[in-house]
Amino acid sequence: MSSPVIAIDAMGGDFGPRCIVPACISFLASHPAITLTLVGDPDVILRYIGRHSFDDSRLRIYAATQAVDMAEKPSHALRYKPDSSMRVALELVANGGADACVSAGNTGALMAFARQALGMLPSIERPAIYTQLPIMGRHCVLVDLGANLDCSALNLYQFACLGAAAAKADGVSEPRVALLNVGTEQTKGNSVVQQASALLKKSSHLNYIGFIEANGVFRCEADVVVCDGFAGNVLLKGSEGLVSMLFKHLDEAPILFKLLAAPLLHRLKKDITPARYNGAGFLGLGGLVIKSHGGADEFGFQHAIQQAVYAVKLRLNDVIKANFLDLYEDSVPKCD
Amino acid sequence: MSSPVIAIDAMGGDFGPRCIVPACISFLASHPAITLTLVGDPDVILRYIGRHSFDDSRLRIYAATQAVDMAEKPSHALRYKPDSSMRVALELVANGGADACVSAGNTGALMAFARQALGMLPSIERPAIYTQLPIMGRHCVLVDLGANLDCSALNLYQFACLGAAAAKADGVSEPRVALLNVGTEQTKGNSVVQQASALLKKSSHLNYIGFIEANGVFRCEADVVVCDGFAGNVLLKGSEGLVSMLFKHLDEAPILFKLLAAPLLHRLKKDITPARYNGAGFLGLGGLVIKSHGGADEFGFQHAIQQAVYAVKLRLNDVIKANFLDLYEDSVPKCD
Repeated sequence: MSSPVIAIDAMGGDFGPRCIVPACISFLASHPAITLTLVGDPDVILRYIGRHSFDDSRLRIYAATQAVDMAEKPSHALRYKPDSSMRVALELVANGGADACVSAGNTGALMAFARQALGMLPSIERPAIYTQLPIMGRHCVLVDLGANLDCSALNLYQFACLGAAAAKADGVSEPRVALLNVGTEQTKGNSVVQQASALLKKSSHLNYIGFIEANGVFRCEADVVVCDGFAGNVLLKGSEGLVSMLFKHLDEAPILFKLLAAPLLHRLKKDITPARYNGAGFLGLGGLVIKSHGGADEFGFQHAIQQAVYAVKLRLNDVIKANFLDLYEDSVPKCD
Repeated sequence: MSSPVIAIDAMGGDFGPRCIVPACISFLASHPAITLTLVGDPDVILRYIGRHSFDDSRLRIYAATQAVDMAEKPSHALRYKPDSSMRVALELVANGGADACVSAGNTGALMAFARQALGMLPSIERPAIYTQLPIMGRHCVLVDLGANLDCSALNLYQFACLGAAAAKADGVSEPRVALLNVGTEQTKGNSVVQQASALLKKSSHLNYIGFIEANGVFRCEADVVVCDGFAGNVLLKGSEGLVSMLFKHLDEAPILFKLLAAPLLHRLKKDITPARYNGAGFLGLGGLVIKSHGGADEFGFQHAIQQAVYAVKLRLNDVIKANFLDLYEDSVPKCD
């Protein structure tokens, strides 16, 4: 495989190029085989590059005259921002100029532009967003994280197939797939969750293990956890917020306590850092797109780029396509 | 106020009387002004009491011949379990024999029996479940936690009023009320959340501050966080699971690291313990009911009893009724 090229939406996110440009320069320094194409206003990008030194054969600038606002309606962006940094970065992936795209911009607009530029995998109704939660030294694929706030049972079924394929690409041979619910008893949940569970039970290709509660996710009870985007967003951001709160609490401890605990804290921070939650992938599209948290700092944004590189190296979309078609054979199951 | 009497559903929960009876005996030992009425099969309760010594003037046994199963459909329990420990304990509250009820049993059945036995507050469509998340030395009322998986905008509006009154009862004068969403921008969220936000903005009695993301909950950005029961359940159980995972991670550290970190760990465990998340109250009913987690251990169940005592001492329902009627005056607002 040639050296991966990642297209970066340099204008997106709460902090825009002020955060993204330095993150890219740091990333290039620590990843000698990667090329980054920064898409946005060249003057602004060059201003933030300033006097930083870097390998200029691996940092390209690609001009785009517009930027999507964080609070802009996706329909508005689709209509009025054809030359936005977000859309141009996605087009680079669509036409082969880049292997993946990373954006910290408006999630809805990114999803809309991505569908337009990259198209959908066959038979998939809606793309989903996923991440790999780091749990006890393993990964748990969580899907959806906010792309689909109201889901049908069939949507959830398809997310399960996509998520299982993503877990397989990551090396899990028979990923345990579970449906997030308010209890594990069969009678629990609303009608959508009940119907999705019935569909999943019918699939012979999925290793469906039933319902999972949110605390079970952190006991590593499943490799793939499926839910609508509202619940997934709450679970992900809640985890991120709680970990940040805990670290803040630890930081406020008396200095002597912290000095004594330094080895333990070092170990804890290495394994469980909020920034490690950053970087979510889109599933179901014809190309690789990673969404960084809008409020990510430089370290967090680098982690999102890392996720993109990882997805490219795993040939994530090829694995998904192959597995998904396989998974899908016995499917398009019908609700009772 | 006379000494509070708490009715305990002794047969509920994953572990039933084996866990609940010893928890009650320990609770009585550490709380000399409280009386507990254990409701269930007297033979079984007496067996678990065994040779424990306790102040028998403050532990009463009240016979009930049936028990609700954890996986039983609420409609089945309502119909076939009129003499269940759960229902009999609630009747004690209804007829003045107890000031509050604590159960670790089937949530749906508890809610159904509670509505039947205690009735609803005027104008409230559906009761909700709430808890007070301990965050950075403050409390955050989170409502709903699973009683209402699919909510209307008016339901969410009413939960906001109930939650705000609960926060007031707890001493917060102008509780900041926020609606849980996938983003804080006004355009974010599904139609129910959008409509609920419009209703909340119209209320002159609520200090509504807009949307909150799940990570904002742990930054203490609101005193009351309102959401449907699915999202609330995910946020609460996810937090609980993540904290448990972190403590497990710390426990697995090398012994020397742990010894050195003992003062810090002691401080952390004191402030942030999974068991402290146990004990959720019902809001909107004509009496006080606390739901313990089904899987709570003795320590956790004691925390749920403590919550009940706290609610009785705060005269929670009186405060809610007074504030709620006040809050409700300008309301029954209409969706646009």
